[in-house]
Amino acid sequence: MPTSKHAAPDRDNPTVRRSPCPVACALDLFGDRWTLLIIRDLILGRRRFKEFAESPEGIPTNILSNRLERLLNGGVVRQIPADKGSKRLAYELTEKGLALRPILLTIRDWGLQWEPETKAGMERGD
Amino acid sequence: MPTSKHAAPDRDNPTVRRSPCPVACALDLFGDRWTLLIIRDLILGRRRFKEFAESPEGIPTNILSNRLERLLNGGVVRQIPADKGSKRLAYELTEKGLALRPILLTIRDWGLQWEPETKAGMERGD
Repeated sequence: MPTSKHAAPDRDNPTVRRSPCPVACALDLFGDRWTLLIIRDLILGRRRFKEFAESPEGIPTNILSNRLERLLNGGVVRQIPADKGSKRLAYELTEKGLALRPILLTIRDWGLQWEPETKAGMERGD
Repeated sequence: MPTSKHAAPDRDNPTVRRSPCPVACALDLFGDRWTLLIIRDLILGRRRFKEFAESPEGIPTNILSNRLERLLNGGVVRQIPADKGSKRLAYELTEKGLALRPILLTIRDWGLQWEPETKAGMERGD
């Protein structure tokens, strides 16, 4: 059983899974403080790097770059032109990414119930 | 908007929330690669530090100690005697912790659908 904190595979270059557990595999992709906030923003209609960076939590841009790359590599988001004919890029959720919506909603509902004075931007009951 | 990587409050001593978003607040508690695996283990009936440490992902014991303390402080788990009259301690989920079950189940279902060759220890359809 690995006990060193260096034993876990590099999650940005996963070659060996921690286990076949679907929860462990999912957390290797989005188990951190920030990734699901980017997914939240995408669900709320934000599409640009700048828009994600402007969210109230203030994600550091180096972390944002890293997470977007991980989501691209994981097939959760894809890059698209920001506007028709534009070279500027935006992001959108793939089918795999859209399938994260129920996870976001259950986390939101848990937070609303158990963490005092939280407010949802996503409409409740979605 | 904070952009420094040091701008976020210490999640083990939160004094200022990142935002009123229930997802952000929830992720301050369990947004990492390990915490929801401990919750998974508790749901599966594991109760002792040693049992969590023996899970196949091989959580480093220093991280396990930190996460259990965070979960205690967050009211997600409580300590109980491991056996009647025993001084050895075990952990159990509080009502707030048991309410995380739907989150685990949606993450499990997403992983089973989208991450190839994953297998669930929790019965599907729970």
